[in-house]
Amino acid sequence: MPEFNAPLRDMRFVLHEVFDAPSLWARLPALSETVDADTADAILEEAAKVTGQLIAPLSRSGDEEGAQFEAGAVRTPAGFKEAYATYIDGGWVGLAGNPAYGGLGMPKMLAVQFEEMLYGADSSFALYSALTSGACLAIDAHASEELKSTYLPRLYSGEWAGTMCLTEPHSGSDLGLLRTRAEPRADGSYALTGTKIFITGGEQDLTANIVHLVLARLPDAPPGSRGISLFLVPKFLVEADGSLGARNPVHCGSIEHKMGIKASATCVMNFDGAVGYLVGEPNRGLAAMFTMMNYERLSIGIQGIGCAEASYQNAVAYARDRLQGRAPGGAAAPEKSADPIIVHADVRRMLMTMKALTEGGRAFSTYVGQQLDLAKFAEDDEERGAAEAMVALLTPIAKAFFTDTGLESCIHGQQVFGGHGYVREWGQEQLVRDARIAQIYEGTNGIQALDLLGRKLVANRGAGLRQFAAEVRAFVDSPDGVGQPFGDELLDALNRLEAVSDWLLEQAADDPAAVGAAAVDYLHLFGYVAYAYMWARMASVAERRRADDEAFYGAKLATAQFYFSRLLPRIHSLEAAIRAGSASLYGLGAEQF
Amino acid sequence: MPEFNAPLRDMRFVLHEVFDAPSLWARLPALSETVDADTADAILEEAAKVTGQLIAPLSRSGDEEGAQFEAGAVRTPAGFKEAYATYIDGGWVGLAGNPAYGGLGMPKMLAVQFEEMLYGADSSFALYSALTSGACLAIDAHASEELKSTYLPRLYSGEWAGTMCLTEPHSGSDLGLLRTRAEPRADGSYALTGTKIFITGGEQDLTANIVHLVLARLPDAPPGSRGISLFLVPKFLVEADGSLGARNPVHCGSIEHKMGIKASATCVMNFDGAVGYLVGEPNRGLAAMFTMMNYERLSIGIQGIGCAEASYQNAVAYARDRLQGRAPGGAAAPEKSADPIIVHADVRRMLMTMKALTEGGRAFSTYVGQQLDLAKFAEDDEERGAAEAMVALLTPIAKAFFTDTGLESCIHGQQVFGGHGYVREWGQEQLVRDARIAQIYEGTNGIQALDLLGRKLVANRGAGLRQFAAEVRAFVDSPDGVGQPFGDELLDALNRLEAVSDWLLEQAADDPAAVGAAAVDYLHLFGYVAYAYMWARMASVAERRRADDEAFYGAKLATAQFYFSRLLPRIHSLEAAIRAGSASLYGLGAEQF
Repeated sequence: MPEFNAPLRDMRFVLHEVFDAPSLWARLPALSETVDADTADAILEEAAKVTGQLIAPLSRSGDEEGAQFEAGAVRTPAGFKEAYATYIDGGWVGLAGNPAYGGLGMPKMLAVQFEEMLYGADSSFALYSALTSGACLAIDAHASEELKSTYLPRLYSGEWAGTMCLTEPHSGSDLGLLRTRAEPRADGSYALTGTKIFITGGEQDLTANIVHLVLARLPDAPPGSRGISLFLVPKFLVEADGSLGARNPVHCGSIEHKMGIKASATCVMNFDGAVGYLVGEPNRGLAAMFTMMNYERLSIGIQGIGCAEASYQNAVAYARDRLQGRAPGGAAAPEKSADPIIVHADVRRMLMTMKALTEGGRAFSTYVGQQLDLAKFAEDDEERGAAEAMVALLTPIAKAFFTDTGLESCIHGQQVFGGHGYVREWGQEQLVRDARIAQIYEGTNGIQALDLLGRKLVANRGAGLRQFAAEVRAFVDSPDGVGQPFGDELLDALNRLEAVSDWLLEQAADDPAAVGAAAVDYLHLFGYVAYAYMWARMASVAERRRADDEAFYGAKLATAQFYFSRLLPRIHSLEAAIRAGSASLYGLGAEQF
Repeated sequence: MPEFNAPLRDMRFVLHEVFDAPSLWARLPALSETVDADTADAILEEAAKVTGQLIAPLSRSGDEEGAQFEAGAVRTPAGFKEAYATYIDGGWVGLAGNPAYGGLGMPKMLAVQFEEMLYGADSSFALYSALTSGACLAIDAHASEELKSTYLPRLYSGEWAGTMCLTEPHSGSDLGLLRTRAEPRADGSYALTGTKIFITGGEQDLTANIVHLVLARLPDAPPGSRGISLFLVPKFLVEADGSLGARNPVHCGSIEHKMGIKASATCVMNFDGAVGYLVGEPNRGLAAMFTMMNYERLSIGIQGIGCAEASYQNAVAYARDRLQGRAPGGAAAPEKSADPIIVHADVRRMLMTMKALTEGGRAFSTYVGQQLDLAKFAEDDEERGAAEAMVALLTPIAKAFFTDTGLESCIHGQQVFGGHGYVREWGQEQLVRDARIAQIYEGTNGIQALDLLGRKLVANRGAGLRQFAAEVRAFVDSPDGVGQPFGDELLDALNRLEAVSDWLLEQAADDPAAVGAAAVDYLHLFGYVAYAYMWARMASVAERRRADDEAFYGAKLATAQFYFSRLLPRIHSLEAAIRAGSASLYGLGAEQF
């Protein structure tokens, strides 16, 4: 059975040393009383215990048993109920929640690191609360005071759980097609009718109530995505005194049999005139739901990092232990029958790739967390606006790049094990299966790429990119020289990104297929440049502190070197593919495939 | 339930038009009486029926049920026994077998296309006979006349099955560590004792007997890989009259629970003084086993193509059917609620990538088959020797590149389905799981890359590459101009491959880690150049025949264009990673990971 140990040393490095979060928190009034360096460390240490000792041990058995559907009810695997009860006692679900309704008000920079641990321990378990946190955000931002005071406290406490009901059988990436209807009732509520699919945690046996956030159409709604409203639909209606009342007619029809995240119930949900409450304005539901979706996109991105970290830990342990062959140039352990496989260059290539991508992702997720904190808590309008623009730009990159590189890492981690990596008991193949969904749900990575290139680059004529590039240049050129290590390589990559972006802006003006043709390669190109920025910042700190801890900072610098020399050059092929344009994608008629 | 339809049109194109196999067969005496164009087409058509109608329908249910182990016996999934009986009645197992012992003597160029169909229909089912075919090759090449006449006819007929017993718990990639012992017995046979793991089809309920080819050590054997001998160990001893005799003490201890190929029994095999017969010379067993291993390497490579083809077929059907969003530039099907997703550039990027890689792989596997046929059947020593050198060079590329690009294709094919791709009933996630093993077993792809770069390039100072390059240049420069389409792009890629190879030869002289550090990237680089050669050859034919069948040849040319403009540029990043050298892989001590 594999173990999971949260990478606390690296998390502290990113949080305290690279981004100096405590200084930021001290200057933001909403956070200065809530959190400081010691509080953050104590939370992360406690989180490491919960995820490593309570949740991770359920991962293999949860995968084998899976969520079960019987007579309309879902049974989570053995141990999940007890572990969930202990987990919510720790207050983790409301970690970054609004204190006015019982949340702990912690910064997102901290929450993203907790989320990484949670997914690293077990993706299925993590999902049962990940949707709750996102639902709370949307409710907090858009719902009436009555809905907020009724629902938020028990969602933050984890007593109740949230879901996100978007997809219908004929309506996935294209939400404008959705058909679920909401009819007004005399008391101001609505009656919802329709079928939603792929609803994570739509039914389960962990919480007393389930709060569905549902996209549906009002009777007079315009067609397409401008006619969608958002509703809160509880499994059990809530009485005026807060107690649970009648069972609302929203039922689970079946659960999916999936490749992975088998302990997470993925439900078909049937709404048969279920009572729902409007959240936000009529026909503005998609915008309101995006509050939740943007949260979930980052969260699901982090699933990719968490799975990759777990796979990396297992692969390193196996590579130190497994004896096969001899080191290049001569035996490293001549007293043994063979050397540990970590001596082999190709095994190191896989481990270094995993390490560079995972630590790069950890830094980048914390960086996005920082921007989210600034967007929410900064006093200055301009600073808040700038952070909002960065969040909009970086969220699709985080979701798709974390998960694409996360799958790559999990595949490497499986490969290090050879044949044992294909056998279930070692856990490495489960991580591949569990990570794979993160490229698909919450908006496929293709959809993320269209969002990045279409909405975040082309639609605003590159403004977000210019802001990002200015920040990178300011770092490289900083007068104290902290931006020097790898500064040239970083600037070269940034220049290429900008040149390709300019070229794409021109293409998009004439070719309606230009954005779609380039989107995924462009997102990857941007991702590698963003990670280069992260690695330059990490290397900068490591270089200055190297004498304090040679083992840790020396490894950081060596990993940065690996990233710049072996992974960043992937941008050359991506650039060539982008510049090939859209024509070669449309050489075939649909019938010629 | 997905269907599988063998890509007959494309197979005929490759066999007849690109490589003009019938002309080759006509000039080789051993084949001229055996096969011609019509025979080959008839065989492929029959094979398409068997694989599409008999085997493919068992794939989903076989995955769900899996092979079961009970009280020492293995039960294959429902329907496998009956299907296997029908399958062997067709004579498929001995398709390319030696006619002197009941094989059909068909050329490998044909057999590789049959194998692709078999894996495309169901990898698990395919494995039950793939090992038999390989075992026959080794027996035919190395065993005594008595063993050959006793075993080959019933292996070719499929009544008995073969296995390959190499791996032990502590000895996988490093076969020199293996411990299974073979003690001489008075009658000239041996008593084998030891444990082998990961034995595909080590036990099953499909055949009356199972013939294990086992690597073991004689009592006086030198240590390491020079002290390994090969033995034939039947499950049931065979009496002088050919009937089955006593049960040999070789037993299945358990089967693995795996990520995929669940209907294939992967067995722990315990040899407890089991009677075995020496095959070939004492202590030369590894060389003899390589006859089988090289066969299996190509075969397992083809598993990658077969899975990718199946995934492609499903993805195309889904992309034509699923309605989401609108085509760039305006609705393609305005009468419908949305356009089929095949209109979207990013969906096309995935489908075109699958198509270009799969058809490139199909051509390349047939090309390797051609070299195998020449190595076996050519009259002229020089021609035979040249073909042998090409087989040695190309086999590791085929195994690893087919399966690495095969997994990539299957992942694209799953992604096209969105959330439905993650659900088991659609079959796309099974293909990802089934294809994944092919990168691991039969020598991991890292081991294949070391073989290519270490043994096939560095050890012979690039002789094999020069031979390959000369053939490519001769094609591009052919006086009739047939090598013109994409000739410049092909030559440019070839020049880069040669330059990197020269650089690596220099590096390897001074740096013992140089080969391992570059191997996988080098294999991929070579693979993309090899596919470029295939695509140039296919485009050459398509250009000349375009007027005969615009739909087919036009698609070929458009796919070639896609390959050269969007996939071949991957070599730029690979080259940069190779030239980064080994230093960045050894910046960390084992304890710093």
